[in-house]
Amino acid sequence: MLLQKPTLYTDFYELTMAQGYFLSGRHQQPANFDYFFRSLPFKGGYVIFAGLSDLLEIIENFTFHEDELAYLKEQGFKSEFLSYLKDFQFQGDIYSVKEGEVIFANEPVLRVEGNILETQILETVILNTLNFESLIATKASRIKLAAGDKSVLDFGLRRSQGLGGLQASKASVIGGIGGSSNVLSGKMYDIDVSGTMAHSWVQSFGDEITAFRTYARHYPDASILLVDTYDTLKSGVPNAIKVAKELEEKGHKLIAIRLDSGDLAYLARQSRNMLDNAGLDYVKIAASNQLDEYVIKSLQNQNAPIDLFGVGTKLVTAYDDPALDGVYKLSSINGNPTLKISENIEKITLPDTKKIVRYLNEDGSFYCDGVLLEDEGEQDVVYHPHVTHKSSKVAELKSETLLSKIVDQGRVTIIPTTPKQSAAYARERLTKLNQEHKRFDNPHVYKVGVSKKLRDLKDQLVQKG
Amino acid sequence: MLLQKPTLYTDFYELTMAQGYFLSGRHQQPANFDYFFRSLPFKGGYVIFAGLSDLLEIIENFTFHEDELAYLKEQGFKSEFLSYLKDFQFQGDIYSVKEGEVIFANEPVLRVEGNILETQILETVILNTLNFESLIATKASRIKLAAGDKSVLDFGLRRSQGLGGLQASKASVIGGIGGSSNVLSGKMYDIDVSGTMAHSWVQSFGDEITAFRTYARHYPDASILLVDTYDTLKSGVPNAIKVAKELEEKGHKLIAIRLDSGDLAYLARQSRNMLDNAGLDYVKIAASNQLDEYVIKSLQNQNAPIDLFGVGTKLVTAYDDPALDGVYKLSSINGNPTLKISENIEKITLPDTKKIVRYLNEDGSFYCDGVLLEDEGEQDVVYHPHVTHKSSKVAELKSETLLSKIVDQGRVTIIPTTPKQSAAYARERLTKLNQEHKRFDNPHVYKVGVSKKLRDLKDQLVQKG
Repeated sequence: MLLQKPTLYTDFYELTMAQGYFLSGRHQQPANFDYFFRSLPFKGGYVIFAGLSDLLEIIENFTFHEDELAYLKEQGFKSEFLSYLKDFQFQGDIYSVKEGEVIFANEPVLRVEGNILETQILETVILNTLNFESLIATKASRIKLAAGDKSVLDFGLRRSQGLGGLQASKASVIGGIGGSSNVLSGKMYDIDVSGTMAHSWVQSFGDEITAFRTYARHYPDASILLVDTYDTLKSGVPNAIKVAKELEEKGHKLIAIRLDSGDLAYLARQSRNMLDNAGLDYVKIAASNQLDEYVIKSLQNQNAPIDLFGVGTKLVTAYDDPALDGVYKLSSINGNPTLKISENIEKITLPDTKKIVRYLNEDGSFYCDGVLLEDEGEQDVVYHPHVTHKSSKVAELKSETLLSKIVDQGRVTIIPTTPKQSAAYARERLTKLNQEHKRFDNPHVYKVGVSKKLRDLKDQLVQKG
Repeated sequence: MLLQKPTLYTDFYELTMAQGYFLSGRHQQPANFDYFFRSLPFKGGYVIFAGLSDLLEIIENFTFHEDELAYLKEQGFKSEFLSYLKDFQFQGDIYSVKEGEVIFANEPVLRVEGNILETQILETVILNTLNFESLIATKASRIKLAAGDKSVLDFGLRRSQGLGGLQASKASVIGGIGGSSNVLSGKMYDIDVSGTMAHSWVQSFGDEITAFRTYARHYPDASILLVDTYDTLKSGVPNAIKVAKELEEKGHKLIAIRLDSGDLAYLARQSRNMLDNAGLDYVKIAASNQLDEYVIKSLQNQNAPIDLFGVGTKLVTAYDDPALDGVYKLSSINGNPTLKISENIEKITLPDTKKIVRYLNEDGSFYCDGVLLEDEGEQDVVYHPHVTHKSSKVAELKSETLLSKIVDQGRVTIIPTTPKQSAAYARERLTKLNQEHKRFDNPHVYKVGVSKKLRDLKDQLVQKG
């Protein structure tokens, strides 16, 4: 379990507000909050939604324990409020898109309904979990896209942001990475783990051939030999070839060599030739060292004969854009729609209870999304949320709705998907997202419109101020 | 406790190597590993060392439990090795600089001595912990430097990299941030927590004045009113002034208003005038919204009347440089010095058991550091690690040695410092680092030299290949 006691994993103000609602007798007021993000990370065209399974586990364990209440007492919280928290359980409803779904900016992909206290108090943990895991699943998806049918593994734990590494390795799998070096994530989330040797193994033997031989003796069918400790082409690869031949004599096969420095395209080509000339065309080449989607794409464009990419820092920290800007905004209170006004027009939120409709092209690929009020029927047109003359005709298009109820009166009503299941779903959904939205450079913007009724409601509430 | 069961929080290859050493009967060979990083983050001039207390707790709890051994069995590890792990305890020695120390690139700031198995198996968790916490402490230190004597608080949990948020808030305090919104970090690490209201509080009341009044009623001496939900200057500040006056009548004082959008310099100045004109010169102004050291420096240069900065995403993810490149390298095996060769001359490591000597100027400020072999005495000159003609005269300078033993035969021999203690140490040490090394733009490079004997040993081992 990620967080055995999740209630204090929150911003202090969630608790001061909760106490304020409670003490002023307003805590039973019904409220809806939406989770959405405002801009796509990595200058990309989509996000892979992740973090839902962890979040559901957190909600199921969202009870205040004695030590936590004692701590809050020390922080000045009042005893009547602490008594309330002692019996607190989230009893609201949650609607969400599926883990692994392809999503876009400004869509309410998760909605929490309940009283204002219980919906408010979940804010921070929802944001913390969904923002990070969706960010990493998205980065992973881009890296896998660049790698095509080559394997990709996560080696990032040593540079991940502390314990965030646990979620990073898992979210990477949701986004399409094949497995991880991270053993604890493997155990917690049932993702595949692997790994063989570091430079220190080779160094510790004094000579490379003995290091390789010893490893191969203990792992005759599972050796990937790291060939760059001394000199890749003069020492590493020739020694690996020797050991591969010795393994052959005993009926085993060397799995791969690994390149971890230097010009990977050049070294892979030279190594491939050397291996092939030695009759070792089955020995694969793994490469690592500061890889991301751009370096992998370049290696692929050069037809570098690399079979497996090991990615680390750039994946697990989402290095070039290390935070998703997801927010959690009140959309109705006491049955009345509400929104957050902003001088920045793009930051004005969408009021009231909404659904997401995904409109499909003839071939089943995604055409555009529409955000509609919950009770609205079929639409002919969806509109740009704030540019008057922009709209998309959606009449007669096939469509799907993306949100479904996953928590009912506090009870989780779905079986959360495993990372591998979520990965399969993401993979399938990505095939329906057209290529131009998946491009790394200036991807075509996927349209997310709103219904006329929703836009009118928003305009009316903004006017009111 | 950060990680109750830390042994599997590791890269799979640490365990395959450990098994390899064990099965080949080499696991008792003595080995030394050094932790160091190669480049300073944020194009800055220094790093604040953090993560040590968490690491010591992890080492004290580094035992393999039944469920962990069962998982490793499923992964194909052999029963004789698993029996060994069952009784495994780290029994080596660890030397380290103090938590909060000001450190630089290519200095071995932590050294692990023991047998090759026990020293190797700690690699990942050492890197994961020290890399991230040092990164964030450093970022925090830069932000605090920009803020001068103004207060800074961490509000970043919602955008932190998953559970990494627990460490981020703590490491921020070590670097100089005054406290956090993160309640669980507060409880775990005894750091100060605080917070008041979100936009949703204000929205939920329908009108701003009622929202402010209600909050002030329940927190008459602890209110910071968020004034930008509708219109900062036309609505938020005037309403805050009203409520401040009402508080005065009851003998209380409004603590502050908070600005969270728009041009913070302009809004702060206007708000300050309005507050002062209302006789509320004691009401402070807090500001947040995508702040980092550069934005804060700009606000300070404009003399924006902001008393408290709330920083989030840019701090807790170290947004502009989200990973420290720390490594853990074998420096001796079986009593023989060793190094990792690389075509990139800067990546060649320093062999053998070493100490760090910090040379001081007359006024006690830091002049330069020298990395010497452990048994060396006073030096007249320290040398650039790979540029022949560069050296620094250190004869007759006062000096300190930075490494001390903190773990003796597996037993932690120091009382780990609290974040507040580490913060006090960091603050004191930073006063001894001259201004030009702390500059954000092109900071003067602080010199880290090596002794002649160490450089000769390195050259000799590189020659040998």
